Amino acid sequence: MSVEQLVHQICVQAREAARGLATLPSDQKNQALLALAGALEQEAGTLKQANAKDLAGAAQAGLSAAMMDRLTLSDKVIASMAQGLKDVAALPDPVGEVTSMWRRPNGLLVGRQRIPLGVIGFIYESRPNVTVDAAGLCLKSGNAVVLKGGKEAIHSNLALAQLITAALNQAGLPPAAAQVIPTPDRAATLALLKEEELVDVIIPRGGESLIRFVAAESRIPVLKHYKGVCHLYVDQGADHEMAVNLAINGKCQRPGVCNAIETLLVHAAEARAFLPLAAAALMGRGVELRGCPRTGTLVPQAKAAVEEDWPAEFLDLILAVKVVDSLEEAMDHIARYGSRHTEAIVTRDYGRARRFIDGVDSSLVLVNASTRFNDGGELGLGAEIGINTSKLHAFGPMGLAELTTTKFIAYGDGQVRA
Amino acid sequence: MSVEQLVHQICVQAREAARGLATLPSDQKNQALLALAGALEQEAGTLKQANAKDLAGAAQAGLSAAMMDRLTLSDKVIASMAQGLKDVAALPDPVGEVTSMWRRPNGLLVGRQRIPLGVIGFIYESRPNVTVDAAGLCLKSGNAVVLKGGKEAIHSNLALAQLITAALNQAGLPPAAAQVIPTPDRAATLALLKEEELVDVIIPRGGESLIRFVAAESRIPVLKHYKGVCHLYVDQGADHEMAVNLAINGKCQRPGVCNAIETLLVHAAEARAFLPLAAAALMGRGVELRGCPRTGTLVPQAKAAVEEDWPAEFLDLILAVKVVDSLEEAMDHIARYGSRHTEAIVTRDYGRARRFIDGVDSSLVLVNASTRFNDGGELGLGAEIGINTSKLHAFGPMGLAELTTTKFIAYGDGQVRA
Repeated sequence: MSVEQLVHQICVQAREAARGLATLPSDQKNQALLALAGALEQEAGTLKQANAKDLAGAAQAGLSAAMMDRLTLSDKVIASMAQGLKDVAALPDPVGEVTSMWRRPNGLLVGRQRIPLGVIGFIYESRPNVTVDAAGLCLKSGNAVVLKGGKEAIHSNLALAQLITAALNQAGLPPAAAQVIPTPDRAATLALLKEEELVDVIIPRGGESLIRFVAAESRIPVLKHYKGVCHLYVDQGADHEMAVNLAINGKCQRPGVCNAIETLLVHAAEARAFLPLAAAALMGRGVELRGCPRTGTLVPQAKAAVEEDWPAEFLDLILAVKVVDSLEEAMDHIARYGSRHTEAIVTRDYGRARRFIDGVDSSLVLVNASTRFNDGGELGLGAEIGINTSKLHAFGPMGLAELTTTKFIAYGDGQVRA
Repeated sequence: MSVEQLVHQICVQAREAARGLATLPSDQKNQALLALAGALEQEAGTLKQANAKDLAGAAQAGLSAAMMDRLTLSDKVIASMAQGLKDVAALPDPVGEVTSMWRRPNGLLVGRQRIPLGVIGFIYESRPNVTVDAAGLCLKSGNAVVLKGGKEAIHSNLALAQLITAALNQAGLPPAAAQVIPTPDRAATLALLKEEELVDVIIPRGGESLIRFVAAESRIPVLKHYKGVCHLYVDQGADHEMAVNLAINGKCQRPGVCNAIETLLVHAAEARAFLPLAAAALMGRGVELRGCPRTGTLVPQAKAAVEEDWPAEFLDLILAVKVVDSLEEAMDHIARYGSRHTEAIVTRDYGRARRFIDGVDSSLVLVNASTRFNDGGELGLGAEIGINTSKLHAFGPMGLAELTTTKFIAYGDGQVRA
């Protein structure tokens, strides 16, 4: 069988499984998740053996330490996968919720009811724990999922696939509800992206080159996340201590993630007092500053920023700094250089807080809080499958509800259209 | 300037206009719509002159009577465009609505706020009234729109574009908020579909070949509607008179539209009494029946259905008829041959009504009501820009709210992530 035929067969089976999943009782879906959690704990030894093959291959291929770390299924990672499944099992089931209902003048009762998306194609890189996280979220939301992981993790993913199939069988779910494509070929990814009649949505997770490849090749709608160039704006009259704390949290707590800040914008009225304070705190934590000319005057240790620094996602302990003369200039800068991901204002002013909230076009806009909160768990969605920075379907973090859509339902007593 | 450069420039201006539109007061948007409504009424003569050029060209090209009818800007069509704008102006503004808000354990107040999608690319065929309808809906929902109509309607669309620009100026809106691409070239459509950095969503409206062309060529997400193969299922114990009325309304009231029924499914227990009754009523209205063998026994005048009839969208006074032995068989038939558009059950049974509502995967599922209600206006959305039969973003009819998305907003007092 060719790779294309294999992928097609997997997608046909997923589509069939999806129909039954859509109306499955929550209890039964939760049983599958809990069975898988139990199996992960019991079979940790088997998983680590399979993972060792991947790690050996990766070492031979000369993968970086960071890549090796992502690939490793340690006891801690395995325990955290199991706990993740238990957490998702405990969340409310989004499927079946009637989000609103109204009565038409002719007596027809019309509502919207949450339903699964159907079949999700999930394409990711080297982390094998994503296999389990994605399977759990998709199953809980009533979706069938076809999982295509990276070639480095193929042995780990095949071992996990066996446990997933066994857990599905144990809970009485169709085993095709969550399938791992059993080949690391990129041809399989391409084949999956062409199955527009069988797959409802593609969710890629990984570096920008993977996302761009998937978006360019897919005939199926893609929920994608490119990059986060997040801004913290310190307004005229802002609380300096709060602003320093938010800058440190935004830049230093985890610099390599998408919701870390990349640029600090400071109102000119605060720059003289605030910037030396903030610079000392940030540089004390190893942050390299790249400032506009006015920043350079106030913070001589800062490097001079170049044009390429303003739209840059550093993902590192580097922060661009710019002094602005007004809220409007800050918002113009964000509109020009930002990535619509996350922006925050530090302010004491009611009117400017409102203008910032309304005027900034990002998936999360905050007043007096850290950009690091742009995360499904932190915002209260319970769990997260990714962040969507295109505006369609679900702008921002996607939890269980965002893996569903709504259909219209209508209850009548014989109404016809006039 | 090349077509590509022209389209790019239009999209750049639309993107700039979109930023201001997003926070415009409702009153000002409504003023633009009402100014345009007034201009249409005042300039009906000018519009009809421009339209006459299109009609002359169409006559020369030998277009069908139906195409000529769609192309014609009569006084009635012009009055209806103006009334449509007044109706949309009177609808509530979806932008700015906070759809929900909750407090996190750390005190952060998190909500979701409706925002426009941004820039909409609207691609359609020969009806010039679509130019005005689409502009009105996009502007009211705070979106900038780039309109690309068919080549047959170019003179009409350019005349309408002048009125639109004048109305935008009169209400103080940026004139780039609604632009008509001033060339009928297909190259312009192709250029628009590649502007992924500037255009947020493409909405095509027209025949299946246009939609498939747009979906295949677009790098931008497309909200699309292929076809409606809608089913009416008459359950065991159903009220025969109600079922006949729903079949007649579904098939005969407007056979050429997507929410008309194409297949009638009848439970075997009702077939002997119901089918002759229904057949007489339908054939009396000129409907051709194409039945399964059991239908043929009960209704000798019916033609024998062939396999191609079950997935067919006849868009005509033709109805496929099949006798089934159970609700499950009806739902299996719908899952196999349907288009996820609209399905209805006629029943007196509580449990089977519930199973049908939950188990059928269509954008509207009805109990005891006509499939013809699948329309934004009829369901209570106020107006409609199209019907989405892909599940992402908005499954089914799309009104003003469906031309928006939500962003997260958060109000804190210094919260940082631990």
